[in-house]
Amino acid sequence: MVTPFPGTNPLDDDHLHEECALFGIYGTSDAAAHTALGLHALQHRGQEASGIVSFDGETFHSHRDLGLVGDIFGDANVIQKLKGHVAVGHNRYATTGDTVLRNVQPIYADFEFGGLAVAHNGNITNAHILRRELVRRGCLFQSTMDTEVINHLISRSTYHTVVDRVIDALQQVKGAYSLVMLTADGLMGVRDPYGVRPLVLGRLDEAWILASETVALDILGATFIREVEPGELVLIGEHGLKSIKPFNKAPRRLCIFEHIYFARPDSIMDGLGIYEVRKRIGVELAKESHVPADVIVPVPDSGVPAAMGYAKESGLPFELGIIRNHYVGRTFIEPADHIRHLGVKLKHNANRATLQGKRVILVDDSIVRGTTSVKIVAMVRAAGAREVHMRIAAPPTTHSCYYGVDTPERDKLLAARMNVADMARFIGVDSLAFVTMDGLYRAVGEPGRDAIDPRFCDACFTGDYPISLDDLDDPEHRQLSLLRESA
Amino acid sequence: MVTPFPGTNPLDDDHLHEECALFGIYGTSDAAAHTALGLHALQHRGQEASGIVSFDGETFHSHRDLGLVGDIFGDANVIQKLKGHVAVGHNRYATTGDTVLRNVQPIYADFEFGGLAVAHNGNITNAHILRRELVRRGCLFQSTMDTEVINHLISRSTYHTVVDRVIDALQQVKGAYSLVMLTADGLMGVRDPYGVRPLVLGRLDEAWILASETVALDILGATFIREVEPGELVLIGEHGLKSIKPFNKAPRRLCIFEHIYFARPDSIMDGLGIYEVRKRIGVELAKESHVPADVIVPVPDSGVPAAMGYAKESGLPFELGIIRNHYVGRTFIEPADHIRHLGVKLKHNANRATLQGKRVILVDDSIVRGTTSVKIVAMVRAAGAREVHMRIAAPPTTHSCYYGVDTPERDKLLAARMNVADMARFIGVDSLAFVTMDGLYRAVGEPGRDAIDPRFCDACFTGDYPISLDDLDDPEHRQLSLLRESA
Amino acid sequence: MVTPFPGTNPLDDDHLHEECALFGIYGTSDAAAHTALGLHALQHRGQEASGIVSFDGETFHSHRDLGLVGDIFGDANVIQKLKGHVAVGHNRYATTGDTVLRNVQPIYADFEFGGLAVAHNGNITNAHILRRELVRRGCLFQSTMDTEVINHLISRSTYHTVVDRVIDALQQVKGAYSLVMLTADGLMGVRDPYGVRPLVLGRLDEAWILASETVALDILGATFIREVEPGELVLIGEHGLKSIKPFNKAPRRLCIFEHIYFARPDSIMDGLGIYEVRKRIGVELAKESHVPADVIVPVPDSGVPAAMGYAKESGLPFELGIIRNHYVGRTFIEPADHIRHLGVKLKHNANRATLQGKRVILVDDSIVRGTTSVKIVAMVRAAGAREVHMRIAAPPTTHSCYYGVDTPERDKLLAARMNVADMARFIGVDSLAFVTMDGLYRAVGEPGRDAIDPRFCDACFTGDYPISLDDLDDPEHRQLSLLRESA
Amino acid sequence: MVTPFPGTNPLDDDHLHEECALFGIYGTSDAAAHTALGLHALQHRGQEASGIVSFDGETFHSHRDLGLVGDIFGDANVIQKLKGHVAVGHNRYATTGDTVLRNVQPIYADFEFGGLAVAHNGNITNAHILRRELVRRGCLFQSTMDTEVINHLISRSTYHTVVDRVIDALQQVKGAYSLVMLTADGLMGVRDPYGVRPLVLGRLDEAWILASETVALDILGATFIREVEPGELVLIGEHGLKSIKPFNKAPRRLCIFEHIYFARPDSIMDGLGIYEVRKRIGVELAKESHVPADVIVPVPDSGVPAAMGYAKESGLPFELGIIRNHYVGRTFIEPADHIRHLGVKLKHNANRATLQGKRVILVDDSIVRGTTSVKIVAMVRAAGAREVHMRIAAPPTTHSCYYGVDTPERDKLLAARMNVADMARFIGVDSLAFVTMDGLYRAVGEPGRDAIDPRFCDACFTGDYPISLDDLDDPEHRQLSLLRESA
Repeated sequence: MVTPFPGTNPLDDDHLHEECALFGIYGTSDAAAHTALGLHALQHRGQEASGIVSFDGETFHSHRDLGLVGDIFGDANVIQKLKGHVAVGHNRYATTGDTVLRNVQPIYADFEFGGLAVAHNGNITNAHILRRELVRRGCLFQSTMDTEVINHLISRSTYHTVVDRVIDALQQVKGAYSLVMLTADGLMGVRDPYGVRPLVLGRLDEAWILASETVALDILGATFIREVEPGELVLIGEHGLKSIKPFNKAPRRLCIFEHIYFARPDSIMDGLGIYEVRKRIGVELAKESHVPADVIVPVPDSGVPAAMGYAKESGLPFELGIIRNHYVGRTFIEPADHIRHLGVKLKHNANRATLQGKRVILVDDSIVRGTTSVKIVAMVRAAGAREVHMRIAAPPTTHSCYYGVDTPERDKLLAARMNVADMARFIGVDSLAFVTMDGLYRAVGEPGRDAIDPRFCDACFTGDYPISLDDLDDPEHRQLSLLRESA
Repeated sequence: MVTPFPGTNPLDDDHLHEECALFGIYGTSDAAAHTALGLHALQHRGQEASGIVSFDGETFHSHRDLGLVGDIFGDANVIQKLKGHVAVGHNRYATTGDTVLRNVQPIYADFEFGGLAVAHNGNITNAHILRRELVRRGCLFQSTMDTEVINHLISRSTYHTVVDRVIDALQQVKGAYSLVMLTADGLMGVRDPYGVRPLVLGRLDEAWILASETVALDILGATFIREVEPGELVLIGEHGLKSIKPFNKAPRRLCIFEHIYFARPDSIMDGLGIYEVRKRIGVELAKESHVPADVIVPVPDSGVPAAMGYAKESGLPFELGIIRNHYVGRTFIEPADHIRHLGVKLKHNANRATLQGKRVILVDDSIVRGTTSVKIVAMVRAAGAREVHMRIAAPPTTHSCYYGVDTPERDKLLAARMNVADMARFIGVDSLAFVTMDGLYRAVGEPGRDAIDPRFCDACFTGDYPISLDDLDDPEHRQLSLLRESA
Repeated sequence: MVTPFPGTNPLDDDHLHEECALFGIYGTSDAAAHTALGLHALQHRGQEASGIVSFDGETFHSHRDLGLVGDIFGDANVIQKLKGHVAVGHNRYATTGDTVLRNVQPIYADFEFGGLAVAHNGNITNAHILRRELVRRGCLFQSTMDTEVINHLISRSTYHTVVDRVIDALQQVKGAYSLVMLTADGLMGVRDPYGVRPLVLGRLDEAWILASETVALDILGATFIREVEPGELVLIGEHGLKSIKPFNKAPRRLCIFEHIYFARPDSIMDGLGIYEVRKRIGVELAKESHVPADVIVPVPDSGVPAAMGYAKESGLPFELGIIRNHYVGRTFIEPADHIRHLGVKLKHNANRATLQGKRVILVDDSIVRGTTSVKIVAMVRAAGAREVHMRIAAPPTTHSCYYGVDTPERDKLLAARMNVADMARFIGVDSLAFVTMDGLYRAVGEPGRDAIDPRFCDACFTGDYPISLDDLDDPEHRQLSLLRESA
Repeated sequence: MVTPFPGTNPLDDDHLHEECALFGIYGTSDAAAHTALGLHALQHRGQEASGIVSFDGETFHSHRDLGLVGDIFGDANVIQKLKGHVAVGHNRYATTGDTVLRNVQPIYADFEFGGLAVAHNGNITNAHILRRELVRRGCLFQSTMDTEVINHLISRSTYHTVVDRVIDALQQVKGAYSLVMLTADGLMGVRDPYGVRPLVLGRLDEAWILASETVALDILGATFIREVEPGELVLIGEHGLKSIKPFNKAPRRLCIFEHIYFARPDSIMDGLGIYEVRKRIGVELAKESHVPADVIVPVPDSGVPAAMGYAKESGLPFELGIIRNHYVGRTFIEPADHIRHLGVKLKHNANRATLQGKRVILVDDSIVRGTTSVKIVAMVRAAGAREVHMRIAAPPTTHSCYYGVDTPERDKLLAARMNVADMARFIGVDSLAFVTMDGLYRAVGEPGRDAIDPRFCDACFTGDYPISLDDLDDPEHRQLSLLRESA
């Protein structure tokens, strides 16, 4: 029988997903239009909803909606209402549960000192505890976003200046956060002391830009200046840029998954081209776990650079043995039981002419629940591949992320439930190998992983969480709100 | 040239407009469906937006949207999500300025004691002052509605029980308010000490109902019990209904415009059928200011009962000399300059066969800015009326309302700018008369207006404001929020 | 359980419904804007869909959509695209079955002689037979509308001029039709030889107007010239108006239901004000079948004039004992079984204060299936009426209409199944009476009904069909198209 | 100033565009659901609109809408209405001008023999002439699509059986066409005698499938049987498949652009894997016109296979030097003049780390107007490329296509206006080369182009049109309809 097939959510592709993109610009006419373009370049970091708040010297203007940046802000009428020389924008990733407009960022509030808009990428690990305490003291929350906790802490701060209040608030907050804030005085950009989430600084003529990745500078023809440093707060206003380091120094811990999957390949992070890093992971993989084969085939699009590196290192031909269909709508139908693996076929098709009779090494960026891998492998075999070996450009994902990445519960993570041999059997491959932790660190230019002081946050592979997870350890678990909203 | 005609807003008919309708029900399955029907019966009190919050014993459910009740809640999917045995609903009138979803009621917040939803009809006259103070103490507001002040005061209260906190909050609030509140324990209904806005109590089998008018009981086949009294707080929950009178006693001051125009003619208020009251105003008018004429014609629909009373008293025939077209869309076009008075013609047409050659007494309920009256009179004359006399079933509207009714600024009120003779000239009638204050009071069963202790709030006619207007007198005028939102 | 309630279609109010409104204008700039206003004034003749076709001297422009005129044509962008000095428009009533855009009029086609747009009010009684024949000869139909048959007959005609082709086509067609057609040369207006459907002629400065009713002239400030006569074809173009009478003369048979219910009360038809006719029907009713009572109450809005006439004749007070709620959305919900008669309550409420303890004479315009009457009577009794008598301003509706009015099958018509006494019992009234045929004819100024040559088409009351019903008598019944379209 | 930027239509990427995709299936339950999936796999052949017509043994069901397949047919309610064991579907490409629903295929009509639905890929080159003649004979057209001419010819045919009528009609038609037709008897598939447009035959268990490309079989797990041959008409019904060759034999002339760009790389056409063909074109290019360089960079996504072939042949590294953003909405804004080349940046970004200081060979599939190439080259240079050489995997496009591909007027084709040296200057490259005609033919397995009897239609490169262009040569040019429709 014809039935809707909930599993064909086009975003449900068995990847970890970034929760947000940030963009801010100060000192240009058409600040909102520039922000819309920056958000478009960062669309890969969140496709569910977007918002922009601008300030015209007198009034703040806000527009937030569900959908893609181009659809929300492509309308000239919308952009023209967002007046001002300074603006902040945000893209949101589709997490589970009810998405309602009040949960779309940037969030805005009137304070004693005037208006303030906040856009946040990351996750506050003591948000529940702080929120409970704030509600006890009489704070009313307008959303279920952890970001709002920051607003209340700012509001409650007894310090006088906005900056001091922001610092006061952030000193009570734990977790991963890159923030871009907009006030009547200009922009603020902050990265948490560990620098888990990225934030870069750029210039476009006289204007200053803050953005999650350098690609948001490229689309505007802006110049990349430097990254905002972990623990740094930059103030951008009439008198230019000022940098403050208000936090105790902490070890750098950029999320290593930015290199593996989140960031766009044309972004530059940590001084490294992401595309090059991914190719080098492929090189490491080939060095570590090569098997005799005829052809190297990426799972598109994210497996492509690693597959290229693997092919180069192994000397085997790189071929597009799987073709991706980018025209996937919102939902799709499951016509009948005998159409197996439909979900994956809506996006991928085996290039039969290239696979027939071949020993294939499939290269993918990561395995989360393994559901897509099972289907991809079956499809490749159905297209006539003689052997299928899978090589993964990340170590086994064994732990959930609590720093702003949407991860399944641990018991849904394939690598948390099985060893590699069992995973190979589950996925249906002749062999399966993951890049080693040291191999991964070599690809990003380290000699290997320093177990004492690893250069990155790699908790999803190691369980080594650099920032304490207070909410998780809190015995008094309670939902964030008693309300379920449908509009 | 063809141009859009912003003045043809179908709601812009030169009337004062009520800002809200309230409905709450406790103790029935399908509480939300009952609430939707109650709100539908109260649609005349607000057509811009509606919302319902229900509680199912564990979770609160909310759905709020712009549009008519039937369009928002006619969808069974929407109603089925609003689970529970208790619900509260609200209709909102289209005031000027940006209508955004966050300003649609009921407003909900999580408190230390759990969730609470509030629906409000009225206006708090010290809301700006309270809000400024609350923002100073660190409160963040999620809307520009005065109602939210009440939430923050409840949240900040140091009392322990919900009821005590609500009372504590309301004791700081001035103005006109009828409120229906929903908590995990049940419903609360409150009228301000003066009882400016109406609120009635009904039963449907075992269930209790709170509603702005009795027509919301009729649609459900529910029984009218009594009015909630001025200054009364009723608690409805598992153990039935409990009544508290927490405020100092104040004189009764129901808004007299409820009788003149706001309430539906089939509602019963103050023990009087509204339709009968309006007919009696017509009788008074005829006694006070009759002129020789051939026919009594109402401006439909609101002028009909008074015209019937006038006709009966004067012995002249009552005729539908103006026909109303109810199919008015959202906006309309002004095709060319020579189509004069188009705005009014979209809704009204002269019934030429009835008016031709006649001396006409037009009866309307009130005159606010006079713009519609000018057009109606011109249309009646163009249809061949020999004389046009206008009789108004309210005294001259000379003052703005600050108790929850959308009134133009005083200098837009025709009666604040001109005497009756000048108004007659402006409107283009052969004679113009308004019912006297004493005539109006006689129609509602009083011997006349008691200047010392009038039975009603009649400030829009007399400038005698029973409740202090603190915000208006406040020297520090500031907009409620710096934000302008487009979605 | 909460379930959608299909019976609460706001249009399902147990009335016969007109199927269409026509409007055409020639010789003004902004022809489309004028047409939109004319269609708005005729909205009561069809609320499902509207369309306008204009001609700018070179190109025809068309816009058709589902919805109300104000919502479709209130947008200045839409109107500005409909360029030209001549335009034709159409409103369509919501008949049962699938409403798809291709069935919205005016319908347009390219002919050898150029473009032609047709708007039709009525029904062709040999359309199936003609269509079957045309399909046999190779014609492809783009809709299921009978109107398209006319287009194909025009196209197939061997005559040379457009007018001759139109006449040739219409001479093959039986049934009731008023048509407004637009070609590059101007407008054509036609009424069938019996003149079953109305069509009037007006002027606005230099422009000519064709419209279903005079109210469409009033909204523009245009002058009523005369009715297009039965069997007349008027040509309006560069050289003014030309009249042709191409058909054999037939007896006049305007639909008498136009007087009873279809036309707006402020329209003038047959030289009579509709409002006055309806009051006179009430007078006749009172003369024919009065019973002792306390109050005369109309079923609003359509029963109002007859109730006024009845009250005047009987000397009893006319009171608004039922109040109508005009804010009915598209659909609504049925919350629970114990809310009886909800459907009717969405639109009507008993005015309890006026009905309590009274002997009530309810006046309604007609009874079709009787479903609404049952609910209205129960509601009036529940409000405390002591006796309820019903008087109907039309004779019993015993036959279906095949001339363009949406009627239920005969076996759904209450008067076709029961005598008056049984109908009274079914409806639940103490007495029931209908106006007699002679009384009805007296109200429209005749001495009574002439059985040999009645002045009107009254087939729905008498079964005396003036025009043959060929399709109905055709043995080969077949659906018009094998296609079921959902968009 | 902020202004809308009409040039950023996401489809306006300087490619020729296929006008349609076809799919039909006979002999399965859920025929419409299978068709939706097939159309999804063929989405690259048309993204503007889609439609499906099914037949359930008694009634035809149709659903057509604007948008992507997944958005139109992902709704289970829509699919469930399309009942039947046989269905035909169509995707339409966004050509210029007004897209209205009546121009969406499949088109359906009732004939004397019953219903027939047609889906068409291609273009009829004598459609205007035939249409003019048909209008003269009284045919009414419901669309401006050339496909409708076929319907009228079928309808007018004096033959008796449906198949004979179809053959009769097609014998009057010139041009390129692959057709899938649905009648009560089953499916028909036809390719024009030259076989310009593709059509393949597949099986899924007992069911038969017709589709534009093999990828539509893959998504269903169906088996590819063979191509429908040029000039072949296949009948699929209760008694299986029957093949007819009703036309005079003509030379095979598959559109060679299917190999270059139109078909999906994972499709198999002419027995060749498209992906392999494209790689071989790259190989030919490298053999013919190599220059010293550091890196081979494709213009994604369509230039990728040729770039891979080029890299392999030249021994130079293949690198993703340009990254594509697939999240492009419907329209976008142009924020300011100083953001140059924004249109291209919405979709492409230079991968700076890979290009900096390099001599780059850019490989693209074709150049039409050259507008995108100019922007891409400037972007690559801005990213630091030292030299930019462009190699094109097609010969210069010098002529318009009249066989169903949307091509600009000849004077907009860059290669029709300039020689290669001037084109190189215009585009801003250090060198430019196109694959030769012989090279292209070698890539598809021929020894070279046979000037007397070329194996493909290559008119866009050679001006050698195999099928006469009657409409183009017709002196009496007239628009297809006088009507401009906005809804």
